[in-house]
Amino acid sequence: MRVERLTGRDCRRLEPMLAPGVRGGVLLGDDHSIDPRRFVGALLAAATHVGVDVRRDHASRLLVDNDGHEARAAGVALGDGSEIRAGTVVLAAGCWSGGLAGVPENARPPVRPVKGQILRMRSSYPFVTRTVRGVVRGSTVYVVPRSDGEIVVGATSEELGFDTTVSAGGVYELLRDAHELLPGTTELELTETTAALRPGSPDNMPILGESALPGLVLATGHYRSGVLLTPVTADLIAELLETGTLPNIGTPFSPLRFHSEEVSA
Amino acid sequence: MRVERLTGRDCRRLEPMLAPGVRGGVLLGDDHSIDPRRFVGALLAAATHVGVDVRRDHASRLLVDNDGHEARAAGVALGDGSEIRAGTVVLAAGCWSGGLAGVPENARPPVRPVKGQILRMRSSYPFVTRTVRGVVRGSTVYVVPRSDGEIVVGATSEELGFDTTVSAGGVYELLRDAHELLPGTTELELTETTAALRPGSPDNMPILGESALPGLVLATGHYRSGVLLTPVTADLIAELLETGTLPNIGTPFSPLRFHSEEVSA
Repeated sequence: MRVERLTGRDCRRLEPMLAPGVRGGVLLGDDHSIDPRRFVGALLAAATHVGVDVRRDHASRLLVDNDGHEARAAGVALGDGSEIRAGTVVLAAGCWSGGLAGVPENARPPVRPVKGQILRMRSSYPFVTRTVRGVVRGSTVYVVPRSDGEIVVGATSEELGFDTTVSAGGVYELLRDAHELLPGTTELELTETTAALRPGSPDNMPILGESALPGLVLATGHYRSGVLLTPVTADLIAELLETGTLPNIGTPFSPLRFHSEEVSA
Repeated sequence: MRVERLTGRDCRRLEPMLAPGVRGGVLLGDDHSIDPRRFVGALLAAATHVGVDVRRDHASRLLVDNDGHEARAAGVALGDGSEIRAGTVVLAAGCWSGGLAGVPENARPPVRPVKGQILRMRSSYPFVTRTVRGVVRGSTVYVVPRSDGEIVVGATSEELGFDTTVSAGGVYELLRDAHELLPGTTELELTETTAALRPGSPDNMPILGESALPGLVLATGHYRSGVLLTPVTADLIAELLETGTLPNIGTPFSPLRFHSEEVSA
C-alpha cells in the first residue's frame, strides 16, 4: 500500500474540513472502505445465488460424537431441538463463540466482547472525501464518508462484558474527538447511535483453524477488523475444509497457540 | 417561592453527583417538574372525560365573515375542505401560529420557531433527586430526574427556522455541559435525542388575548415555558371567552402591544 507523509497544509488541501490544529498526517492512497450493512446483504444474496443453503437460526448446542475412540464435532442442535448433522462445524459466532454449549473446555475459543459505540451522521454537502483517522488526546477516532451522504464516526473500545447500551459518555467522547479533528461535524445531522460487540482474543488477533476437538473449526476473534478480514478468512477456512490443511499464512492464528502444552508437543 | 443561597458544599450535600467545581447555588425548595408527555396525555383524557369534543385534524385556513360592516373570524376550514364554524377561534398553534392561511396581516401573531434539542437518558440508580440547573461557560443546562428513572437533559436554543434535525453539535453541547455539571452523566444510558420548536415572540413573552381581528383570540408565543404556563393561560383565555374581558394579569401580553398604532390609539 502506498504511504505518503503529509504536512498539516497538505492534509487540509486534501480535506479542507480538517481542523487548523492538525499538524501532519499520512496518506494511504490505496485505502478504501465498505459499508458493512450493505456488504452483509450483498454477501447473503451472492451466497444464496450460488446455492448455499442459508438457515437463520439459533444454534443452541454443539453435537459431539463419542463413538469409542475419539470425540468429534458432528453438527449442531437448534433452538427447537432439531439437529443439523455435519462432518465439520465452523464456529464463527463473533464474541459469542466461546458460549456455545457442548464445546469441550479445551476447544472453546477464548474470546471476550469488546464494546464499540459508533455514530451515524448525514451531510447534505460534501464533507470529507475519504476515511479520516485521527488521534485525539491519545484516543483514536475515524470518520468514514459513504457515497449516499452518510458519515460514520467511530469507535469506542470498552471492556464491559456483554453490555450494548448506548452511553452518554461514549457518544460524548466520539462527538468531542470528531469535533476536534473536523470542527464542521457539529453542523451535521446525527441520525443514529449504536453499540455493538467485537470479539477480542487474548492477543487480539484472529483465531483461525482446527480446534482441539476434531471436526470443530474456529473462525473468530477478529476484534476490530472483522469486515476487513472477511475475504482472507473465507479463503483460508475454505482451503482448510477442502484440503484439510490451513495455508501457511493462517498458521500463526491457530487456536492451539493459546494451549502451551499442545503448541510445544 | 422559597429561595435559599447555598455554598458549593451545601450543593454537593443535597446532590452528591454534582461536580467538585460547583462553587455555589440557589435552592428553590418549592420548585417542581412534570413530564410534558404524560401531562398532555392526562389533559386529553381529562378534557374528553368532561365532554370536550377533541378533533385531531389539520386546520388549513381561518374562515372570516365579511358581511358588510366588519370582518370577523368565523371558524376554520380543515384539510379535507370541511368547515368548523365558531363564534370565536382560539389560535394556539405554537410556532406555527403565524402561518395559518386566511388570517389578516394585522392579526397574525409574530411568532418564530426557536429550535430546542434535548436528550433523554436512563439511570438504574438514583442520580439526582431534583431538577438541577447550571450555567456552563455562559450557556444554561438543566437535568430533570423523572420518577421512572428517566433523566432529561436540555436544552439548546437555536434560531434556525423550522429545522428539526438532531445535530451532532447540539447533542455534543448538551453532553459536554451536563458532564461539566454532573460528571456521572457519562455512565448513563442515552435513550433518545430529539429536536422540537418553541414559539418565540419579538419580546419572547406570551401573546394572549384578542387579536386585531374580532373573534380571533391568540394564545401562543410561550417560548420556553409552554407547559409551565398552561394552567394560567387556560384560566385567562377561558375567562376572556366567558366574560369578553381578559383579566388584568393578562393585559401586558395582549397581541396589540406589537402594533404601536393600535396601542396608542
